[in-house]
Amino acid sequence: MELEQQIETLCRQAQSASRVLAALPSKTKDSWLLSAAERLEANRETILVANRRDIAEAEQKGIATPMVRRLSLEGGKWEDMIDGLRQVARLQDPVGEISEMNVRPNGLRVGRMRIPLGVIGMIYESRPNVTVDAAALCVKAGNAVILRGGSEAFHSNQALGTVLRAAAADTGLPEDAIQLLPTTDRDAIDHLLKMDRYVDLMIPRGGAPLIRKVMRESSIPVLAHDEGVCHVFIDESAEMEMAAAIVRDSKIRQMAICNGLETLLCHRNAASRVLPEVLKRLHEEGVEIRGCSETCDVFSEAVPASDADWSAEYLDKILAVKVVDDLDAAVAHVQRFGSEHTDVIVTSDYASSQEWVRRVNSSTVGVNCSTAFSDGYRLGLGAEIGVSTSKLHAFGPMGLEGLTTRKFVLFGDGQLRE
Amino acid sequence: MELEQQIETLCRQAQSASRVLAALPSKTKDSWLLSAAERLEANRETILVANRRDIAEAEQKGIATPMVRRLSLEGGKWEDMIDGLRQVARLQDPVGEISEMNVRPNGLRVGRMRIPLGVIGMIYESRPNVTVDAAALCVKAGNAVILRGGSEAFHSNQALGTVLRAAAADTGLPEDAIQLLPTTDRDAIDHLLKMDRYVDLMIPRGGAPLIRKVMRESSIPVLAHDEGVCHVFIDESAEMEMAAAIVRDSKIRQMAICNGLETLLCHRNAASRVLPEVLKRLHEEGVEIRGCSETCDVFSEAVPASDADWSAEYLDKILAVKVVDDLDAAVAHVQRFGSEHTDVIVTSDYASSQEWVRRVNSSTVGVNCSTAFSDGYRLGLGAEIGVSTSKLHAFGPMGLEGLTTRKFVLFGDGQLRE
Repeated sequence: MELEQQIETLCRQAQSASRVLAALPSKTKDSWLLSAAERLEANRETILVANRRDIAEAEQKGIATPMVRRLSLEGGKWEDMIDGLRQVARLQDPVGEISEMNVRPNGLRVGRMRIPLGVIGMIYESRPNVTVDAAALCVKAGNAVILRGGSEAFHSNQALGTVLRAAAADTGLPEDAIQLLPTTDRDAIDHLLKMDRYVDLMIPRGGAPLIRKVMRESSIPVLAHDEGVCHVFIDESAEMEMAAAIVRDSKIRQMAICNGLETLLCHRNAASRVLPEVLKRLHEEGVEIRGCSETCDVFSEAVPASDADWSAEYLDKILAVKVVDDLDAAVAHVQRFGSEHTDVIVTSDYASSQEWVRRVNSSTVGVNCSTAFSDGYRLGLGAEIGVSTSKLHAFGPMGLEGLTTRKFVLFGDGQLRE
Repeated sequence: MELEQQIETLCRQAQSASRVLAALPSKTKDSWLLSAAERLEANRETILVANRRDIAEAEQKGIATPMVRRLSLEGGKWEDMIDGLRQVARLQDPVGEISEMNVRPNGLRVGRMRIPLGVIGMIYESRPNVTVDAAALCVKAGNAVILRGGSEAFHSNQALGTVLRAAAADTGLPEDAIQLLPTTDRDAIDHLLKMDRYVDLMIPRGGAPLIRKVMRESSIPVLAHDEGVCHVFIDESAEMEMAAAIVRDSKIRQMAICNGLETLLCHRNAASRVLPEVLKRLHEEGVEIRGCSETCDVFSEAVPASDADWSAEYLDKILAVKVVDDLDAAVAHVQRFGSEHTDVIVTSDYASSQEWVRRVNSSTVGVNCSTAFSDGYRLGLGAEIGVSTSKLHAFGPMGLEGLTTRKFVLFGDGQLRE
């Protein structure tokens, strides 16, 4: 009960702060971002001491090396984090923009003004730089933010949060706009997920169990950043070289990422012409090929795929490959096994390209390009808080705009309904 | 368990149908709307027999008269319902529109295409015409719809649903795009709220207990249509006649409606000049005035308000009235007691108008107009599925666009990240 009250107080403070923050001019928010960058630089050693303590504790607990590596704020990550704050300061503030302004027959002028959502709760794992990145984007969009990072990064996150709050005090931003849960107690998350009176949006980022838990238990609206089972479909008319390059870039440019290729589909009439060379090149770079029987026929190094492979998010050097009858069958496969994340066709045929774009309703649908472009920076959003797999509000890569909503604004001179 | 499987089957059928529906051209959807209108006319007597049966059963059960009256499909409601279908057929189809198309430095063309959400679940009470209105809007926006009306309107809804599905068979629309829960068993709702694998959005419309239940228990994203505690703030500089007309129109044009005025705020410096006349006119039309002590000082017919009055949604001939120090205090009152629905200022002062619009983040914020304009038709949306009090996705009056989302579409010629 004491913990619940503590969380409620923190949420209420965030809500009060959000109302002040919502009305602040861009320059105050940008000053905070720049001041936070400076203060982080000035407190670098203190923060890295906290960070090394987290790392040492994680090693002592026997946490796996890749996970421990993600904890570290060193090795370029520090500079990226600081640079990120300055970049966000340069982005255009979405708040206050009025669009779709029009005059109704009675003279009432009606438009839609972009406003902050209010209070955003972020629950994330391991990487402590997310604390800074997420706070920067949420605050730039005029929102208060409640941060709950992984327990293994607790000391790093607290040290970073202290600096972010101190920078607020410098610049006239309400300090309570940046809140960190003060405990690693998991009950705190349960309480937070019920604070719908104060919190407007929950964004969970991390493994599937965390995301499912938040979706199941939250009474606050959730934008999930869930898995990506992404496809490339090699159409009948695909050029072999383009297909090979796109498949390679989509699969092995970066492996442990939600926009990575997991299942390759190939039109039956292109299978013997295109597949052997495309798969040979991947296989030479160490990718295991798990194929349907026809794939195994045209590429002897493939191993037979099982049913589970069609919905697997490997995030690893494994690729599922299936030969399909035609575009219809490819679309049906994507709808059945995909995760509505990112799906690309490689084709030279106009009608196929249009069909694919029209019928595949994933958050990013591409023609003749790598799946790796499903990324806020690459799509021109200027920033990315994540890639939403929720269809409502923000579907796909999500930048500052996804952290806002719109209200109707009405300018009248005495208009009545009656 | 049997009921759960029945609901799951129905949801799965709706999902399959939604994928066909999403790719249909506007003309097929519009044919369905027009055919549904014709078939309803042709089956008028059968449907009204079912409707009269619901009404008779409701009367037998001793259900209150206003509720029984809302059940009826006669007395102009029938014609409005049919006309509504034809109006929706004339609306522009939002699906497929590409906006924000731009070319990235690498030549990749990126745009955002509007697409259906997929499957929408509607839970609503009493008025059976909602069955037709909601199905029309959901299907026009390319979505399958699962309808669960009030148990007291069961026979009417089944009769209407049968006709809507028959019209689908006429016009090449998948029949399963329109689903009605086949039972009044409340467990069916509990099962439906967990079908997040198939259903993309839940829209509850009705009393607060229904809405809270859905928000609390749904694992599917919810757009709530919750209460409106709407305000008019009479600023220091308000013209008396304009204030009186706006207050009257906002309060008594229609009483039992979420955009109706519930609390009137008045700047202290305008209280003696404006309030007595504004309140006198309302009082003469039978509105009970519940005022703060200063209101009671300037208008002797007022009765003292209690704390509960400031957050009451009366939906009745009662108005809470409070004198406040200034615009700051009015904004603070709205933030504390309001429901972020519709809030209007009456003012002659430029700075006050701008402050109000900037600082009050309700779904509809107005200057010098009636709160009654918070309505999809009046704001030019062409239609209205309801007024969302959820901040995400669609905030405020919600038309066809709110029943869609956007995907990123990428047109490349071989672009790679690497």
